[in-house]
Amino acid sequence: MLKFYYGVATCSLASHIALEEAGADYEAIRVDIRGGQQQSPEYLALNPKGRVPTLVTDRGVLSETPAILAYIAQTHRAAELAPIDDPFAFGELQAFNSYLCSTVHVGHAHKMRGGRWADDPAAREAMTAKVTQNMSDYFGIIESRMFRGPWVMGERYSVGDPYLFTVSNWLEGDGVDIRKFPRVADHFERMKARPAVAKVLDVVSAKS
Amino acid sequence: MLKFYYGVATCSLASHIALEEAGADYEAIRVDIRGGQQQSPEYLALNPKGRVPTLVTDRGVLSETPAILAYIAQTHRAAELAPIDDPFAFGELQAFNSYLCSTVHVGHAHKMRGGRWADDPAAREAMTAKVTQNMSDYFGIIESRMFRGPWVMGERYSVGDPYLFTVSNWLEGDGVDIRKFPRVADHFERMKARPAVAKVLDVVSAKS
Repeated sequence: MLKFYYGVATCSLASHIALEEAGADYEAIRVDIRGGQQQSPEYLALNPKGRVPTLVTDRGVLSETPAILAYIAQTHRAAELAPIDDPFAFGELQAFNSYLCSTVHVGHAHKMRGGRWADDPAAREAMTAKVTQNMSDYFGIIESRMFRGPWVMGERYSVGDPYLFTVSNWLEGDGVDIRKFPRVADHFERMKARPAVAKVLDVVSAKS
Repeated sequence: MLKFYYGVATCSLASHIALEEAGADYEAIRVDIRGGQQQSPEYLALNPKGRVPTLVTDRGVLSETPAILAYIAQTHRAAELAPIDDPFAFGELQAFNSYLCSTVHVGHAHKMRGGRWADDPAAREAMTAKVTQNMSDYFGIIESRMFRGPWVMGERYSVGDPYLFTVSNWLEGDGVDIRKFPRVADHFERMKARPAVAKVLDVVSAKS
Protein backbone atom coordinates (compact mmCIF):
# COMPACT_ATOMS: atom_id res chain seq x y z
CA MET A 1 0.00 0.00 0.00
CA LEU A 2 1.17 3.51 -0.80
CA LYS A 3 1.94 5.88 2.08
CA PHE A 4 1.22 9.48 1.24
CA TYR A 5 2.62 12.27 3.42
CA TYR A 6 0.69 15.50 3.12
CA GLY A 7 0.48 18.91 4.76
CA VAL A 8 -2.58 21.08 5.39
CA ALA A 9 -2.84 24.03 2.98
CA THR A 10 0.07 22.88 0.80
CA CYS A 11 0.54 21.72 -2.77
CA SER A 12 0.23 18.10 -1.58
CA LEU A 13 -3.52 18.58 -2.08
CA ALA A 14 -3.04 17.99 -5.82
CA SER A 15 -1.48 14.53 -5.43
CA HIS A 16 -3.94 13.69 -2.65
CA ILE A 17 -6.90 14.32 -4.95
CA ALA A 18 -5.18 12.43 -7.78
CA LEU A 19 -4.74 9.38 -5.53
CA GLU A 20 -8.42 9.50 -4.69
CA GLU A 21 -9.48 9.97 -8.31
CA ALA A 22 -7.27 7.04 -9.30
CA GLY A 23 -8.89 4.77 -6.73
CA ALA A 24 -5.42 4.13 -5.31
CA ASP A 25 -4.80 1.97 -2.28
CA TYR A 26 -3.09 4.49 -0.01
CA GLU A 27 -2.74 5.67 3.54
CA ALA A 28 -2.69 9.44 4.05
CA ILE A 29 -0.35 10.61 6.80
CA ARG A 30 -0.48 14.20 7.94
CA VAL A 31 2.80 16.07 8.46
CA ASP A 32 2.53 18.91 10.99
CA ILE A 33 3.97 21.67 8.80
CA ARG A 34 3.32 24.48 11.30
CA GLY A 35 5.03 22.44 13.99
CA GLY A 36 8.02 21.82 11.71
CA GLN A 37 7.64 18.03 11.52
CA GLN A 38 8.92 18.14 7.93
CA GLN A 39 12.34 19.06 9.37
CA SER A 40 12.42 16.13 11.82
CA PRO A 41 15.17 13.53 11.35
CA GLU A 42 12.52 10.88 10.64
CA TYR A 43 10.93 12.88 7.87
CA LEU A 44 14.23 14.08 6.39
CA ALA A 45 15.28 10.43 6.16
CA LEU A 46 12.36 9.95 3.78
CA ASN A 47 12.62 13.29 2.00
CA PRO A 48 15.86 15.25 2.51
CA LYS A 49 14.23 18.37 1.08
CA GLY A 50 11.90 18.66 4.08
CA ARG A 51 8.84 19.30 1.98
CA VAL A 52 5.53 17.69 1.20
CA PRO A 53 4.25 15.73 -0.65
CA THR A 54 6.18 12.49 -0.22
CA LEU A 55 4.89 9.21 -1.62
CA VAL A 56 6.34 5.97 -0.26
CA THR A 57 5.90 3.05 -2.66
CA ASP A 58 7.02 -0.57 -2.42
CA ARG A 59 9.97 0.40 -4.64
CA GLY A 60 11.04 3.49 -2.72
CA VAL A 61 10.21 7.15 -2.25
CA LEU A 62 8.98 9.76 -4.70
CA SER A 63 8.70 13.50 -4.19
CA GLU A 64 7.83 16.58 -6.29
CA THR A 65 4.23 17.11 -7.36
CA PRO A 66 4.69 16.80 -11.15
CA ALA A 67 6.58 13.50 -10.72
CA ILE A 68 4.04 12.08 -8.27
CA LEU A 69 1.12 13.10 -10.49
CA ALA A 70 2.61 11.36 -13.53
CA TYR A 71 3.42 8.29 -11.40
CA ILE A 72 -0.15 8.02 -10.10
CA ALA A 73 -1.50 8.28 -13.65
CA GLN A 74 0.98 5.77 -15.01
CA THR A 75 0.31 3.18 -12.29
CA HIS A 76 -3.49 3.54 -12.38
CA ARG A 77 -4.13 3.43 -16.08
CA ALA A 78 -7.80 2.52 -15.80
CA ALA A 79 -8.48 5.96 -14.34
CA GLU A 80 -7.10 7.59 -17.52
CA LEU A 81 -5.56 10.55 -15.70
CA ALA A 82 -2.85 11.28 -18.28
CA PRO A 83 -2.26 10.50 -21.99
CA ILE A 84 0.85 8.48 -21.14
CA ASP A 85 1.10 6.81 -24.55
CA ASP A 86 0.87 10.02 -26.55
CA PRO A 87 4.23 11.75 -26.00
CA PHE A 88 3.08 15.13 -27.27
CA ALA A 89 -0.18 15.23 -25.29
CA PHE A 90 1.67 13.95 -22.22
CA GLY A 91 4.30 16.64 -22.81
CA GLU A 92 1.63 19.33 -22.86
CA LEU A 93 0.22 18.05 -19.58
CA GLN A 94 3.68 17.93 -18.06
CA ALA A 95 4.45 21.44 -19.29
CA PHE A 96 1.29 22.68 -17.60
CA ASN A 97 2.18 20.96 -14.32
CA SER A 98 5.77 22.19 -14.48
CA TYR A 99 4.56 25.76 -14.95
CA LEU A 100 2.38 25.45 -11.84
CA CYS A 101 5.31 23.99 -9.90
CA SER A 102 8.22 26.17 -10.94
CA THR A 103 6.50 29.49 -11.64
CA VAL A 104 3.03 29.73 -10.03
CA HIS A 105 3.82 27.89 -6.78
CA VAL A 106 7.14 29.73 -6.51
CA GLY A 107 5.40 33.06 -7.03
CA HIS A 108 2.88 32.24 -4.31
CA ALA A 109 5.63 31.12 -1.92
CA HIS A 110 7.18 34.58 -1.91
CA LYS A 111 4.36 35.71 0.38
CA MET A 112 4.90 33.41 3.34
CA ARG A 113 8.18 31.71 2.49
CA GLY A 114 10.32 34.65 1.40
CA GLY A 115 12.90 33.60 3.98
CA ARG A 116 13.97 30.91 1.57
CA TRP A 117 15.46 33.57 -0.71
CA ALA A 118 16.36 36.54 1.52
CA ASP A 119 17.15 37.06 5.20
CA ASP A 120 16.35 40.76 5.39
CA PRO A 121 12.80 41.38 6.73
CA ALA A 122 12.38 44.41 4.47
CA ALA A 123 13.21 42.25 1.44
CA ARG A 124 10.61 39.73 2.51
CA GLU A 125 8.05 42.52 2.71
CA ALA A 126 9.00 43.66 -0.77
CA MET A 127 8.48 40.10 -2.03
CA THR A 128 5.09 39.85 -0.36
CA ALA A 129 4.09 43.14 -1.98
CA LYS A 130 4.56 41.67 -5.48
CA VAL A 131 2.66 38.40 -4.98
CA THR A 132 -0.79 39.70 -5.96
CA GLN A 133 0.49 41.09 -9.27
CA ASN A 134 2.55 38.02 -10.08
CA MET A 135 -0.23 35.54 -9.34
CA SER A 136 -2.61 37.66 -11.39
CA ASP A 137 -0.17 37.67 -14.32
CA TYR A 138 0.37 33.91 -14.13
CA PHE A 139 -3.35 33.20 -14.05
CA GLY A 140 -3.86 35.62 -16.92
CA ILE A 141 -1.68 33.34 -19.06
CA ILE A 142 -3.44 30.22 -17.78
CA GLU A 143 -6.88 31.69 -18.51
CA SER A 144 -6.09 33.00 -21.98
CA ARG A 145 -3.46 30.62 -23.35
CA MET A 146 -3.17 27.37 -21.41
CA PHE A 147 -6.55 26.28 -20.05
CA ARG A 148 -8.61 24.52 -22.74
CA GLY A 149 -11.86 23.67 -21.04
CA PRO A 150 -13.91 22.14 -19.74
CA TRP A 151 -10.79 20.60 -18.17
CA VAL A 152 -7.22 21.80 -18.21
CA MET A 153 -6.26 19.69 -21.22
CA GLY A 154 -9.64 19.76 -22.95
CA GLU A 155 -12.39 17.16 -22.92
CA ARG A 156 -10.47 14.76 -20.72
CA TYR A 157 -9.97 15.21 -17.01
CA SER A 158 -6.31 14.68 -16.04
CA VAL A 159 -3.88 15.11 -13.15
CA GLY A 160 -3.48 18.71 -14.30
CA ASP A 161 -6.97 19.44 -12.94
CA PRO A 162 -6.37 18.79 -9.23
CA TYR A 163 -3.10 20.70 -9.54
CA LEU A 164 -4.81 23.75 -11.05
CA PHE A 165 -7.52 23.47 -8.39
CA THR A 166 -4.84 23.46 -5.67
CA VAL A 167 -3.14 26.64 -6.84
CA SER A 168 -6.44 28.35 -7.71
CA ASN A 169 -7.34 27.78 -4.06
CA TRP A 170 -4.46 30.10 -3.08
CA LEU A 171 -5.70 33.09 -5.10
CA GLU A 172 -8.02 34.56 -2.47
CA GLY A 173 -5.28 34.55 0.17
CA ASP A 174 -2.94 36.11 -2.36
CA GLY A 175 -5.31 39.01 -2.93
CA VAL A 176 -6.47 37.94 -6.40
CA ASP A 177 -10.15 37.75 -7.28
CA ILE A 178 -10.63 34.47 -9.13
CA ARG A 179 -13.61 35.99 -10.96
CA LYS A 180 -11.12 37.94 -13.09
CA PHE A 181 -10.49 34.54 -14.70
CA PRO A 182 -13.96 33.19 -15.52
CA ARG A 183 -12.86 29.88 -17.04
CA VAL A 184 -10.54 29.13 -14.11
CA ALA A 185 -13.28 30.20 -11.68
CA ASP A 186 -15.78 27.87 -13.34
CA HIS A 187 -13.24 25.03 -13.21
CA PHE A 188 -12.67 25.71 -9.51
CA GLU A 189 -16.39 25.35 -8.72
CA ARG A 190 -16.76 22.18 -10.81
CA MET A 191 -13.72 20.67 -9.09
CA LYS A 192 -15.25 21.28 -5.64
CA ALA A 193 -18.33 19.35 -6.75
CA ARG A 194 -16.36 16.19 -7.57
CA PRO A 195 -16.77 13.50 -4.89
CA ALA A 196 -13.03 12.76 -4.77
CA VAL A 197 -12.24 16.42 -4.18
CA ALA A 198 -14.89 16.83 -1.48
CA LYS A 199 -13.63 13.71 0.27
CA VAL A 200 -10.02 14.87 0.31
CA LEU A 201 -10.96 18.39 1.43
CA ASP A 202 -12.83 16.79 4.35
CA VAL A 203 -9.77 14.77 5.34
CA VAL A 204 -7.39 17.68 5.03
CA SER A 205 -9.62 20.11 6.94
CA ALA A 206 -10.33 17.67 9.80
CA LYS A 207 -8.70 18.48 13.13
CA SER A 208 -5.77 16.18 13.68
CA MET B 1 11.64 18.57 -38.16
CA LEU B 2 11.69 19.91 -34.63
CA LYS B 3 12.45 23.58 -34.09
CA PHE B 4 14.26 24.27 -30.86
CA TYR B 5 14.45 27.81 -29.48
CA TYR B 6 17.33 28.30 -27.06
CA GLY B 7 19.10 31.09 -25.20
CA VAL B 8 22.80 31.46 -24.42
CA ALA B 9 23.62 30.73 -20.77
CA THR B 10 20.12 29.50 -19.94
CA CYS B 11 18.54 26.23 -18.85
CA SER B 12 17.74 25.47 -22.51
CA LEU B 13 21.22 23.90 -22.63
CA ALA B 14 19.79 20.76 -20.98
CA SER B 15 17.20 20.10 -23.69
CA HIS B 16 19.68 21.09 -26.38
CA ILE B 17 22.13 18.42 -25.23
CA ALA B 18 19.31 15.89 -24.89
CA LEU B 19 18.24 16.53 -28.51
CA GLU B 20 21.80 15.91 -29.63
CA GLU B 21 22.20 12.77 -27.49
CA ALA B 22 18.90 11.47 -28.90
CA GLY B 23 20.07 11.95 -32.47
CA ALA B 24 16.99 14.09 -33.04
CA ASP B 25 16.26 15.82 -36.33
CA TYR B 26 16.09 19.42 -35.14
CA GLU B 27 16.93 22.98 -36.02
CA ALA B 28 18.36 25.10 -33.20
CA ILE B 29 17.24 28.73 -33.27
CA ARG B 30 18.91 31.23 -30.97
CA VAL B 31 16.72 33.68 -29.07
CA ASP B 32 18.51 36.92 -28.17
CA ILE B 33 17.78 36.90 -24.43
CA ARG B 34 19.89 39.97 -23.63
CA GLY B 35 18.15 41.85 -26.40
CA GLY B 36 14.75 40.82 -25.06
CA GLN B 37 13.66 38.84 -28.12
CA GLN B 38 11.80 36.42 -25.83
CA GLN B 39 9.33 39.25 -25.16
CA SER B 40 8.70 39.98 -28.85
CA PRO B 41 5.16 39.44 -30.15
CA GLU B 42 6.45 36.70 -32.47
CA TYR B 43 8.05 34.74 -29.66
CA LEU B 44 5.18 35.29 -27.21
CA ALA B 45 2.85 33.85 -29.84
CA LEU B 46 4.83 30.63 -29.56
CA ASN B 47 5.46 30.76 -25.82
CA PRO B 48 3.34 33.23 -23.83
CA LYS B 49 5.67 32.87 -20.85
CA GLY B 50 8.49 34.60 -22.72
CA ARG B 51 11.09 32.07 -21.69
CA VAL B 52 13.33 29.47 -23.27
CA PRO B 53 13.40 26.61 -24.13
CA THR B 54 10.55 26.22 -26.59
CA LEU B 55 10.23 23.15 -28.78
CA VAL B 56 8.01 23.33 -31.85
CA THR B 57 6.85 19.91 -33.03
CA ASP B 58 4.56 18.88 -35.88
CA ARG B 59 1.78 18.60 -33.29
CA GLY B 60 2.35 21.93 -31.58
CA VAL B 61 4.52 23.67 -29.03
CA LEU B 62 6.10 22.38 -25.82
CA SER B 63 7.83 24.38 -23.10
CA GLU B 64 9.31 23.72 -19.63
CA THR B 65 12.55 21.77 -19.38
CA PRO B 66 11.24 18.71 -17.48
CA ALA B 67 8.41 18.27 -20.00
CA ILE B 68 10.69 18.70 -23.02
CA LEU B 69 13.27 16.28 -21.60
CA ALA B 70 10.64 13.57 -21.07
CA TYR B 71 9.23 14.22 -24.54
CA ILE B 72 12.63 13.87 -26.20
CA ALA B 73 13.22 10.59 -24.35
CA GLN B 74 9.77 9.25 -25.14
CA THR B 75 9.99 10.08 -28.86
CA HIS B 76 13.57 8.78 -29.31
CA ARG B 77 13.33 5.46 -27.53
CA ALA B 78 16.38 3.94 -29.18
CA ALA B 79 18.56 6.43 -27.31
CA GLU B 80 17.26 5.09 -23.97
CA LEU B 81 17.33 8.45 -22.24
CA ALA B 82 14.59 7.67 -19.68
CA PRO B 83 13.01 4.52 -18.19
CA ILE B 84 9.62 5.44 -19.64
CA ASP B 85 8.08 1.99 -19.13
CA ASP B 86 9.06 1.72 -15.46
CA PRO B 87 6.75 4.16 -13.67
CA PHE B 88 8.78 4.21 -10.45
CA ALA B 89 12.17 4.69 -12.12
CA PHE B 90 10.66 7.30 -14.43
CA GLY B 91 9.12 8.98 -11.37
CA GLU B 92 12.53 9.18 -9.70
CA LEU B 93 14.02 10.77 -12.82
CA GLN B 94 11.15 13.22 -13.04
CA ALA B 95 11.48 14.06 -9.34
CA PHE B 96 15.15 14.84 -9.91
CA ASN B 97 14.38 17.08 -12.89
CA SER B 98 11.54 18.79 -11.05
CA TYR B 99 13.85 19.59 -8.14
CA LEU B 100 16.35 21.18 -10.52
CA CYS B 101 13.55 23.18 -12.17
CA SER B 102 11.49 24.37 -9.22
CA THR B 103 14.14 24.67 -6.50
CA VAL B 104 17.69 24.83 -7.89
CA HIS B 105 16.99 26.93 -10.99
CA VAL B 106 14.70 29.18 -8.94
CA GLY B 107 17.40 29.62 -6.30
CA HIS B 108 19.94 30.56 -8.97
CA ALA B 109 17.51 33.00 -10.61
CA HIS B 110 17.39 35.12 -7.47
CA LYS B 111 20.81 36.48 -8.37
CA MET B 112 20.09 38.07 -11.75
CA ARG B 113 16.32 37.82 -11.98
CA GLY B 114 15.22 39.02 -8.54
CA GLY B 115 13.04 41.61 -10.26
CA ARG B 116 10.60 38.80 -10.93
CA TRP B 117 9.74 38.69 -7.24
CA ALA B 118 10.45 42.17 -5.84
CA ASP B 119 10.68 45.69 -7.25
CA ASP B 120 12.79 47.23 -4.49
CA PRO B 121 16.52 47.30 -5.44
CA ALA B 122 17.54 46.64 -1.82
CA ALA B 123 15.38 43.52 -1.78
CA ARG B 124 17.04 42.32 -4.95
CA GLU B 125 20.43 42.81 -3.32
CA ALA B 126 19.25 40.80 -0.32
CA MET B 127 18.17 37.99 -2.64
CA THR B 128 21.51 38.01 -4.44
CA ALA B 129 23.28 37.78 -1.09
CA LYS B 130 21.62 34.47 -0.29
CA VAL B 131 22.24 32.70 -3.61
CA THR B 132 25.64 31.21 -2.74
CA GLN B 133 24.32 29.61 0.45
CA ASN B 134 21.15 28.32 -1.19
CA MET B 135 22.93 26.80 -4.18
CA SER B 136 25.42 25.21 -1.83
CA ASP B 137 22.61 23.72 0.26
CA TYR B 138 20.79 22.38 -2.79
CA PHE B 139 23.93 20.76 -4.19
CA GLY B 140 24.68 19.30 -0.77
CA ILE B 141 21.43 17.34 -1.02
CA ILE B 142 22.14 16.35 -4.63
CA GLU B 143 25.65 15.15 -3.74
CA SER B 144 24.70 13.20 -0.62
CA ARG B 145 21.18 11.98 -1.29
CA MET B 146 20.12 12.21 -4.92
CA PHE B 147 23.08 11.60 -7.23
CA ARG B 148 23.74 7.86 -7.65
CA GLY B 149 26.74 7.67 -9.92
CA PRO B 150 28.30 7.29 -12.29
CA TRP B 151 25.25 9.03 -13.77
CA VAL B 152 22.42 10.84 -12.03
CA MET B 153 20.16 7.80 -11.92
CA GLY B 154 22.91 5.19 -11.63
CA GLU B 155 24.43 3.04 -14.34
CA ARG B 156 22.28 4.47 -17.08
CA TYR B 157 22.76 7.87 -18.62
CA SER B 158 19.44 9.76 -18.82
CA VAL B 159 17.99 13.19 -19.53
CA GLY B 160 18.72 14.01 -15.88
CA ASP B 161 22.42 14.19 -16.75
CA PRO B 162 22.41 17.12 -19.17
CA TYR B 163 20.07 18.93 -16.77
CA LEU B 164 22.42 18.44 -13.82
CA PHE B 165 25.33 19.50 -16.04
CA THR B 166 23.45 22.68 -16.97
CA VAL B 167 22.82 23.78 -13.39
CA SER B 168 26.27 22.63 -12.21
CA ASN B 169 27.63 25.02 -14.83
CA TRP B 170 26.07 27.90 -12.87
CA LEU B 171 27.87 27.16 -9.61
CA GLU B 172 31.05 29.12 -10.30
CA GLY B 173 29.10 32.27 -11.17
CA ASP B 174 27.02 31.76 -8.06
CA GLY B 175 30.12 31.72 -5.85
CA VAL B 176 30.06 27.99 -5.10
CA ASP B 177 33.16 25.84 -5.53
CA ILE B 178 32.01 22.69 -7.31
CA ARG B 179 34.90 20.78 -5.68
CA LYS B 180 32.90 20.84 -2.43
CA PHE B 181 30.75 18.21 -4.20
CA PRO B 182 33.24 15.68 -5.58
CA ARG B 183 30.73 13.36 -7.23
CA VAL B 184 28.96 16.25 -8.95
CA ALA B 185 32.34 17.71 -9.95
CA ASP B 186 33.42 14.40 -11.48
CA HIS B 187 30.10 14.17 -13.34
CA PHE B 188 30.59 17.69 -14.67
CA GLU B 189 34.00 16.81 -16.15
CA ARG B 190 32.75 13.55 -17.68
CA MET B 191 29.81 15.38 -19.22
CA LYS B 192 32.12 17.90 -20.91
CA ALA B 193 33.96 15.01 -22.51
CA ARG B 194 30.88 13.65 -24.25
CA PRO B 195 30.79 14.50 -27.97
CA ALA B 196 27.17 15.62 -27.87
CA VAL B 197 27.91 18.03 -25.04
CA ALA B 198 31.02 19.45 -26.71
CA LYS B 199 29.10 19.92 -29.95
CA VAL B 200 26.24 21.81 -28.27
CA LEU B 201 28.63 23.94 -26.22
CA ASP B 202 30.33 24.94 -29.48
CA VAL B 203 27.02 25.95 -31.04
CA VAL B 204 25.86 27.88 -27.99
CA SER B 205 29.16 29.71 -27.50
CA ALA B 206 29.51 30.69 -31.18
CA LYS B 207 29.01 34.35 -31.97
CA SER B 208 25.63 34.86 -33.57
